[in-house]
Amino acid sequence: MKVAKFGGSSMASASQLIKVGDIIKDDASRKFIVVSAPGKRFKEDTKMTDLLIDLGTAYLQQTNFAEQFEAIMQRFTEIVTELELPDTLLDEFTESLKRVQELSDNEASLMDAVKAIGEDSSAKMLSAYLNKIGINSSYINPQEAGLILSDEPGNAQILPDSFDKIRMLRERDGVLVIPGFFGYTEEGKLVTFSRGGSDITGSLIAAGVEAEIYENFTDVDSVFTVNPSFVSNPKTITKLTYKEMRELSYAGFSVFHDEALIPAYHAKIPVAIKNTNNPLAKGTLIVAERELNGRVVTGIASDTGFCSLYVSKYLMNREIGFGRKLLNIFEDEGVSFEHAPSGIDNMSVIFRERNLPRDKERIILERIKNELHPDTVSITRGIAIIMVVGEGLVNSIGVANRATEAFTKANVNIEMINQGSSEVSMMFGIQAADLKRAIRSLYELYFMEEDALVRSGS
Amino acid sequence: MKVAKFGGSSMASASQLIKVGDIIKDDASRKFIVVSAPGKRFKEDTKMTDLLIDLGTAYLQQTNFAEQFEAIMQRFTEIVTELELPDTLLDEFTESLKRVQELSDNEASLMDAVKAIGEDSSAKMLSAYLNKIGINSSYINPQEAGLILSDEPGNAQILPDSFDKIRMLRERDGVLVIPGFFGYTEEGKLVTFSRGGSDITGSLIAAGVEAEIYENFTDVDSVFTVNPSFVSNPKTITKLTYKEMRELSYAGFSVFHDEALIPAYHAKIPVAIKNTNNPLAKGTLIVAERELNGRVVTGIASDTGFCSLYVSKYLMNREIGFGRKLLNIFEDEGVSFEHAPSGIDNMSVIFRERNLPRDKERIILERIKNELHPDTVSITRGIAIIMVVGEGLVNSIGVANRATEAFTKANVNIEMINQGSSEVSMMFGIQAADLKRAIRSLYELYFMEEDALVRSGS
Repeated sequence: MKVAKFGGSSMASASQLIKVGDIIKDDASRKFIVVSAPGKRFKEDTKMTDLLIDLGTAYLQQTNFAEQFEAIMQRFTEIVTELELPDTLLDEFTESLKRVQELSDNEASLMDAVKAIGEDSSAKMLSAYLNKIGINSSYINPQEAGLILSDEPGNAQILPDSFDKIRMLRERDGVLVIPGFFGYTEEGKLVTFSRGGSDITGSLIAAGVEAEIYENFTDVDSVFTVNPSFVSNPKTITKLTYKEMRELSYAGFSVFHDEALIPAYHAKIPVAIKNTNNPLAKGTLIVAERELNGRVVTGIASDTGFCSLYVSKYLMNREIGFGRKLLNIFEDEGVSFEHAPSGIDNMSVIFRERNLPRDKERIILERIKNELHPDTVSITRGIAIIMVVGEGLVNSIGVANRATEAFTKANVNIEMINQGSSEVSMMFGIQAADLKRAIRSLYELYFMEEDALVRSGS
Repeated sequence: MKVAKFGGSSMASASQLIKVGDIIKDDASRKFIVVSAPGKRFKEDTKMTDLLIDLGTAYLQQTNFAEQFEAIMQRFTEIVTELELPDTLLDEFTESLKRVQELSDNEASLMDAVKAIGEDSSAKMLSAYLNKIGINSSYINPQEAGLILSDEPGNAQILPDSFDKIRMLRERDGVLVIPGFFGYTEEGKLVTFSRGGSDITGSLIAAGVEAEIYENFTDVDSVFTVNPSFVSNPKTITKLTYKEMRELSYAGFSVFHDEALIPAYHAKIPVAIKNTNNPLAKGTLIVAERELNGRVVTGIASDTGFCSLYVSKYLMNREIGFGRKLLNIFEDEGVSFEHAPSGIDNMSVIFRERNLPRDKERIILERIKNELHPDTVSITRGIAIIMVVGEGLVNSIGVANRATEAFTKANVNIEMINQGSSEVSMMFGIQAADLKRAIRSLYELYFMEEDALVRSGS
């Protein structure tokens, strides 16, 4: 049995839903279908979820919401009409949109409930369409499916007991269409995952029903080895491990929701990234383990917006607890950091700039000076992180040398290197201005030169 | 005014003391002389401090101590007789050795007091000898000199008020000979620094009297760029910065006592490493800042006996405080660690193996499993650390590439790289078995090839 999740672009219009129907029809083992809300039909379009957020905001501000309401219903109407689905669906959606207004005394609950209408309506439309084309299908509400979540609106987590209930879905007849993105608390209150959380729903269902595979249908043929905005027509990745995917997504690969990998990872269920618009393309498969194919590096990811705090103190190294005290200050101030590499008498702490606003920076610098009495403390902003990721990196001689060679060739100064034992990645910190040059040089090395070597058999 | 400190080998015999006398006579600005206890005269010889420790142990165990007592007095007698110094000195030493027995109800005090007799007698002999050769000289007891220390026997620290008192030594006439290694608490109890602490005394005196230079006389012409047991006849270092010295000494360069650099560092007093047996040799100068001489790397140090603990947990990175909690366990257990580099979902902690005995290892692994619920946790022993040190490393493009090239050439796998937190060094972790090969390759690259390039003007 397979779980297939269809993203926003797959649910964006009637013509897209027709493709989804074909994909489901094509493989009888696609029994569990999880859907997002309708996404963009074209670049300037607005996603259904954003329209719903606008409506929720108008509700809360008690301003006129006729326009927002209308925009939402127009998109639903378009799909329902073009697919010739029963008009009763539209009445149902109108009713849902009106009903959430009652929650206006609780902002978080109202926003979660109004956003969920996108996925919920998607699921109802798809189920109706499947029945219309002769596939026995039911819409399954997440509560009925067993998605019982913690009471954290906008960032809910699955409760462990859910999986036993989800597993019972295996006994149901026909294709089950489940809206992604939300579930219910034990008290029956609707709560959502973090944004993009339909991937999480799919992964949870896959883990719960012990699916043979979790298919994630998007609008790309496969995952690229490098961001196509740096390198034109980069090579694609056919297979990678959960670990590799996780490290790539840390530094900007946004194909798959980060948290969403966890349930699949723990249940060891392979995840396939596929294209609704080209379902015959091979796609990208995420697995627990893979054979090495002679290529050392699987992908190169990068992200900007990092900064680094540097503290030095003569003989710091002899002060038991110095590092702990430093990190404690950040925890106290609610600032999460990424890494804390240390030298002999110094320590750097790497943050995402968004986690270290200027006012916090001031407080933290003061506290470090007063509590730790360092010789120097300073902050550098505008740092970019590059992750070179590949299972082939583990214990290979010369791996670091190949990578640093690429930076040297591109005339890029490395501000920071972090390579640890038994890791599938190397992390480099450089000035953001050098990023494109560095990425191109790394790509050239790992995907052009090395492939040429592999092909020539040397 | 200069402070000159003479180490154990310079005080080992009458013939060595004659050289010391010549050195002092040679430069009238050598006003403050700090001395160690007599060291080894030949390879199999026993240092005076070790003879004194044997005697102290016999005192404490209340066993017969005639043999140990005799061995000590024999060495003093040899020096006093050969230099034709007054016999009253020997009576004084005998008296000191007997008097410490009274402290036998307090092990730490007795051991500190008995060890201090080595340096104290050295100073008295040298002062007598200087007067004999026509140099106006006084023995100055550390209490009189102003060395007031914290009450931590065997590991005492200077108290801040001391410096004003030490400064008053400038007003004294003649050459002042001060025994190294010990001082007194505010209550007048004798306490010692950590072993090798005569360097600390010299550095404190230099800082207190604001010396123009602190000369440290040993038995080597200068500091080598690399351990001569790995490379025969390695090049020497003529000048390096405090920071460079500190990073080198962290990983095994033992020329100069680690803690001893601090007072000179804070007072910005240059430290010269010189050879008593070859005083005209240029030596090595440690300074606050130096001009770069075209050579990127100043020295390569290495040390074995490290181990690394590896913890991984999916999405660790999202758990605020994970790193702090991990480090907290070590602090709780009184285990000091060296570094804690982290990946995306993992963290390594590097220790000196001596700081992580097997019983502590077991407790710590248990606590990590129970308190942090990681996916995996493991410990690797037998790691060697290599420090490549040089002020020229700051912001040079290609530096990391040159270093990693050397490892690749030597067919050595790099387990860990840490660059960036420190500005003047790169740290590498490798298997201890690969150490010699790696060091030779790095030396070849940085001191043979690069020098050839500098000489050929390219």
